[in-house]
This record gives sequence, structure tokens and C-alpha cells, in this order.
Amino acid sequence: MVMSAESQSLQGMWNALADIGRDGRTGGYRRDAWSPADLELRAWFEQEADRRGLDRHEDRNGNLWAWWGDPASRPGVVTGSHLDSVRDGGAFDGPLGVASAFAAIDLLRERGCEPARPVGVVCFADEEGARFGVPCVGSRLLTGLLDPRRARGLIDDAGDTLGEVLRRAGRDPYALGRDGETLRRVGVFVELHVEQGRGLAPMDAPIGVASAIWPHGRWRFEFHGRTDHAGTTALNDREDAMLPFAAAVLAAREAAREHGVVATFGKVRVAPGNANAIPGRVTAWLDARGADEAAVRRMVAEVAERHEVTCESWIPLVAFDVALRDRVAWVAGRTVKEIGAAAGASGRKTAKRKMKETGDGKAVNGMSPQSATDPDAVPILPTGAGHDAGILAAAGVPSAMLFVRNPTGVSHSPEEHAEAGDCETGVAVLAAVLEDLCAG
Amino acid sequence: MVMSAESQSLQGMWNALADIGRDGRTGGYRRDAWSPADLELRAWFEQEADRRGLDRHEDRNGNLWAWWGDPASRPGVVTGSHLDSVRDGGAFDGPLGVASAFAAIDLLRERGCEPARPVGVVCFADEEGARFGVPCVGSRLLTGLLDPRRARGLIDDAGDTLGEVLRRAGRDPYALGRDGETLRRVGVFVELHVEQGRGLAPMDAPIGVASAIWPHGRWRFEFHGRTDHAGTTALNDREDAMLPFAAAVLAAREAAREHGVVATFGKVRVAPGNANAIPGRVTAWLDARGADEAAVRRMVAEVAERHEVTCESWIPLVAFDVALRDRVAWVAGRTVKEIGAAAGASGRKTAKRKMKETGDGKAVNGMSPQSATDPDAVPILPTGAGHDAGILAAAGVPSAMLFVRNPTGVSHSPEEHAEAGDCETGVAVLAAVLEDLCAG
Repeated sequence: MVMSAESQSLQGMWNALADIGRDGRTGGYRRDAWSPADLELRAWFEQEADRRGLDRHEDRNGNLWAWWGDPASRPGVVTGSHLDSVRDGGAFDGPLGVASAFAAIDLLRERGCEPARPVGVVCFADEEGARFGVPCVGSRLLTGLLDPRRARGLIDDAGDTLGEVLRRAGRDPYALGRDGETLRRVGVFVELHVEQGRGLAPMDAPIGVASAIWPHGRWRFEFHGRTDHAGTTALNDREDAMLPFAAAVLAAREAAREHGVVATFGKVRVAPGNANAIPGRVTAWLDARGADEAAVRRMVAEVAERHEVTCESWIPLVAFDVALRDRVAWVAGRTVKEIGAAAGASGRKTAKRKMKETGDGKAVNGMSPQSATDPDAVPILPTGAGHDAGILAAAGVPSAMLFVRNPTGVSHSPEEHAEAGDCETGVAVLAAVLEDLCAG
Repeated sequence: MVMSAESQSLQGMWNALADIGRDGRTGGYRRDAWSPADLELRAWFEQEADRRGLDRHEDRNGNLWAWWGDPASRPGVVTGSHLDSVRDGGAFDGPLGVASAFAAIDLLRERGCEPARPVGVVCFADEEGARFGVPCVGSRLLTGLLDPRRARGLIDDAGDTLGEVLRRAGRDPYALGRDGETLRRVGVFVELHVEQGRGLAPMDAPIGVASAIWPHGRWRFEFHGRTDHAGTTALNDREDAMLPFAAAVLAAREAAREHGVVATFGKVRVAPGNANAIPGRVTAWLDARGADEAAVRRMVAEVAERHEVTCESWIPLVAFDVALRDRVAWVAGRTVKEIGAAAGASGRKTAKRKMKETGDGKAVNGMSPQSATDPDAVPILPTGAGHDAGILAAAGVPSAMLFVRNPTGVSHSPEEHAEAGDCETGVAVLAAVLEDLCAG
């Protein structure tokens, strides 16, 4: 990322983050919650808060907060995201939202802005669920959407529970649970995030706003067989658990196509896992999402038929607050336009910023952009990805999301990318949105 | 295992081995080569050798030898097997052959036998290949069938090479390689092993002898996709590496049936392995075996079509020395008969010992028992399992195998089993075979 002068603060933060938890072999990030890499990222957050003189604190569920102004006086305008990653994930998913939050505060201060409401930056704990299997653990615990007993008992691949892991990290696992005091400080939440799809690029739009998060869930399948010798057991005598798993993988793809949803078996465990032993048990996780909740459920039911299946998580459709969404989209559109005009005036070359009117947007990957009230507003898109903003919205906190264009749409992969110019625009838009919401 | 008085030594050894490397959760054994469990088993072997005053030594390839008599004077009669296991394997595969070897020596000594030829007990290193992927590493290195450079570079799941692991265990990885001096001491090799199939039970036979080891091999398949977000990537935009893997699993079963062979995908690795990421790469191992080498190769070729496939190991048909096989089967049959008669005379209840004539045996799991020269001989069966005896036979060492009945045929599993009475018969048969071969 090469940034212009006004966003040097974002570039500096990006450089500091670049090497933390990066796997030299794959080039991807491995920032499991509460791993050494995650603890280093959390320390980085605290340093950035301290450097700006923000009041920081960690809540009972491991979420980090940094305040400009006192949220005890009046609920604040909060922005941020998360710093953990999926395994071999990209650089942007999560950290772009946290670093942009700090950079937006820098920009507001440079302009001499004195917000009438407190402004907060948050880093939610364990958003990806890469380690313990359940996503958005920090925001779900905060809002009471995850039972703290269940959270404490979540188990990682090494067999350690989240409770043990927290204790080892010096946290109190019995402090987990709904935290009304912390939650009351959040008057409104805006999460900036790299786009995880291919919606903005075809519209030449650097920035978008979320309309909704698709209903999505995760189901654990257990396929049973009988472990035996791979060489001496006749085909008729074997019960090979890999066969029903393979059939389920193909059935899921077929059923997803039929019902207009997406389905993925991305994680599988085979026991005993010897090349010369017939699998006695295969455990596999089905991730399923779609615009239509009933269609997702029908697809999963079809694949699950005659198998042992446990629903590990399910989040119904989250529709973001319409008035907030349109206001954010309008402020964002105005800011993008101003940047374009300024760039044109100064002759500076920037990323393409010609905007189509949102009404023009056609369905992209089954996601139809919706019209905002103002034709100058940025595109408004639904997303198939879960986010902490969705959890807060589901818990009744007015929330919105800004997306920064992802040219290829690839995410959860080292190839995940956003152009420097678009990230810069994201910071400017976020600053404008914060300023607007503080005034409101 | 509850043993009669004459086999107390086997029971004692069995008790000592019972807890080493056992997983409390699965009840299976995890005795990876050169793991702490394996080192404990190797120390146990040395103690048993010392307790009997046998001359022991470890060869350059990590195989352990214990001699009764001096093999430098004349090539000896060697018996034994291995002590490592597959992951979550059973108690019998390997250790039964080593413990029975020591117990047979005890029996010969009790009878006052003074063998005219030296008798050796061997424990081959890393027979299962559970850790480094290649089976029979110790016997292959000894006989020159595995290149020591390739062996040193084999990598385990933790990324450690066999060379590093050996060095850490205090061994010299550069000493690996063909060892003619050690090999010359082996005049003949007899391996006793738990049966890994369902051949003997239907014939009411406690003991069998191997005719041949099926041709068998292992192939690594690499399936390529593109890692991306499981929720935001439309079905048409995704390249999910799990799909071609699933299709290959089902195709292998179908092709195996068609060609009359067996095929197993027992081990698979998914990258990145996140429940919410589309698999970018799936690596899976196909184990394939059958009586007919050409049929195995045709099956693999059909499944491999259009995929990236590497052959990791291949062993053609091993037919054991016919004269040795018939002699061992005859001595075994006579001994089984004597035990039956003695049991009948003393009125002791033992396992069913009524033997069918070998000519009566019908095809069991596609394995047809072959006629030995004597109708009182024990059944002679081919096997789909690889063994160190097969490696030695392929290298020109006259070799034979004794199988102890496995009532269910299940192996490479905690359910693997042999009755105490049959194990006892196995020790008596092995002692008689050793005595016979020493005289010859």
C-alpha cells in the first residue's frame, strides 16, 4: 500500500502490522484468537490508542476499546473491526477497519474537528472463529448472544478450551457474558471492512454500504464407518466413512445450485487418518448462506438427510437500520465525489472514481444493489459474510457497514486485496461519516 | 489375554506393553516411529533381550537384533516383527510377533533345546510408515530397497525430517543404507503376525501361513482450487478443491469394484482448512492393492486421470519361497494337531481347533487358500497387507509368515484382536518352526 500524505498514518500502521502472524511459506496470516500473534496485535492496538491519548480499556469479553471523549457522559459513535484472521487469511479482513478507525481520528484532528459526541475505536475479540469454531465470539458475548458457559467450553484443535486459553492469557473466563455497561456506551456503530465479493468493481465504485448480512450458519456432520486395514478388507466388508462424506460434498454443491444459495465444506477431520486404514469417522463442517433463509435451511436439510448433524451456529438475516444506512451512503457518496473533484482540480492521478448511480447496478453474484434515497449515494449491497456489525445490529445497536472495493473479490486468502487509493478514500469517507454522526 | 502356564512369559510381556503409547480417549495405540512411545518400546526390547542373556545390537538403520548363539559363525534363523503402530492402531499388529519370538525362545529353552544354528529376534524400525508416510523404512534401508537420501528427507506432519528426528534420538542419519553385514546373518526369516483379514475364522483354523503379499502402492493426489470466502463467492465464481477430491473418492470405489482390487483414501489434508473458506488445495493419499498388479495399476490410472498424482511407494507381488512355505505350514499343522490332541487328552477347553483340509478352503475376500503338499498343513493364504517379511523376501532372503487368527478380521484399529488360546498356539507353532529350521 502506497498512500498519499494525508493518510501517512494508515501506511505507518500498515507497515507495523505487515509481519505479525504472517506465515513465510504461504504468505497468509495466521492470527488465531489469543495466539502469540493475536496478543501482539492487541498490544499494537493499545500502543496506537496511547499514542493518540485515547482512554483505552479491555472489556470482560476481551474486546478492546479506545475513546476520544468520555462515553460515560453520552453514548458514542464507535468504529472499528477485528485483528484476528482465518488461517492463511489476507491482510485486510479486519485490520483495515481498525487501522482506518485510528487514521480517521487523525484526519478529524488535523482538521481541528471537536466532536460533540465521544468517538470510540473497538477491536472485537475472535471474530473469525478460526480457532474455536464459533465466529464473532467477542461481540456475541458482549451482546448476550452467546452463552458464556458454552463459550468457556469451546475446544481448539489442541484440545484446549477457550476458558483455559483465556486463563493462560491472564483473563478471567468467569467474567465472560453480557456486558450492558460497555454496550450502553455504543450509541451507533460503523464498521469499515474490505469488500468480500465482486460487487463494487463492476460498478467502478471504491466504496459501498451494506444493506444486510445474509442468513448464515455452520453445521457439523459426523460420518461413521469402521476403521480397518486398507489392504486386507474386501470392498463388501468395509464401512468407509470417507464415502458418505464425499457424497455429501457433491450433494451440497448440487443442492446449493438448486436452491440458489452457497454451500462449502472447508474443514474436515478424518480418524484415524492413516493412509493404510479405512476411515472410521469423518467430521466435516458445512458453511451455508443465502439471501433466503428458508432456501438455506432446505438445502442443509437435504444434504443432512440420514446423517448425524449438529448446528454449531445460525444467524438469521440481519437488515441494517435503513435510515442510518441511507445517511451513511449519502455522506460517503458526497465525500467520494469531493475527493474526485479535488483530484481532478489538482491533476493528481487517482483510482477510477466515476460512480454509477446506484439504481443502475445490476445483480452481481445474486446480490442486487438497492437504491438509496440520493442518486449520489454510494452503492448499497447485501453481503454473505458475517461481521461484528451484524451481531450488534441483531442486538439492537444502530449499526452500519462501509465496504472498500476488492478488485478481485477474493478474501479469506493471501490474495485478498484493496488498492491503496481505495483504502485512502475509505479513511476519508469514514472520517466524514463519524463527523456527521457526531453532529447528529 | 489370559494365558496357560506354558505361555506366562507372553502374558508378562503383554502386560508390560499394554500401556505404552495408548491413547486414553480412543483406546488405540499411537506408536509413531522414534516418538517417546517408540523409544520406550525399543528400551523394552533391549530389556527382554538382556533378561534372556541374548546378544543384542542396533544396526545402522535402527533395527534391533537379539541373538541366541553367534550369527558370525553361521547365518541364523531369525524371527520377529515391529513395535511401532499406525495411529489409533491395535495391540497385536507388530508386537505379537516380537513378544511371541521371545516367548518361543523361552519355550525352546524350557524343553532343553540346543539349536544347531543361531536364533535371532528382530524388531524392525518404522514398519507402518505412520509418521513419515513410507512403510517398512527399517527393512527397506537394510536391504537397499530405499535410498538413504530419500529416507533422510522424509517429512512428518510437524515438518521434521527423518534425518533430524534420528539425530535428535542420538542416531547418525548418515549411517543409513544397505547393510550387507547385518543381512548376511539372516539365513532365514519367519515373521509371526496377527491375521489382517477374514481368512482363518471361516476355516476354523487358528494358524495360517502366507503364500504371497499382494502388489500394493500409495499415491499422493493434489487437487487444486482457489481459496476464497465461503459466504461471498458465488458458486459460478468458485474453484473448490474439495469437489474433485470428493469425485475421486467415489470414482476410486467404483473403479476398484470394476477391477477387483481395493482402494482407500484414508488420509487427507485441506488447505487452508477453515470452515468459512473455500478449499484452495486438497492433498489426499490413495492406498491401492490387489492380487493382480495390472488391475491395480489400471484402477489407479483411471482415478488419476486429469489429476496431479505422485506414486509414493509401490511393491510388486511378493511370492514367498514355496519350499520354505510348505515346510513351515507342515510343521505348523503338526503342532496345532498335537496341541489339539493334548488338550483333548487332558480335557482342557481350548479354542476350536478342528482344521479343514487346505484344499477345501474357498475364496474368502477374493483370497483363495492354496494347497500345501500335506493335507495336515495349516491353510496357506495370500495377504493384502505389507510386511517386513515381504521386503526381506523381495531382497532374496528366504522368508515365511505365520498368521494368528483374527476372529473379526479387523486391524489397524483398536478393535484388532486375537484370542489368548490362539496366541498361545502361535508361540508353540513358532517354537516348533524355529526348532525345525535350526535342525535343517
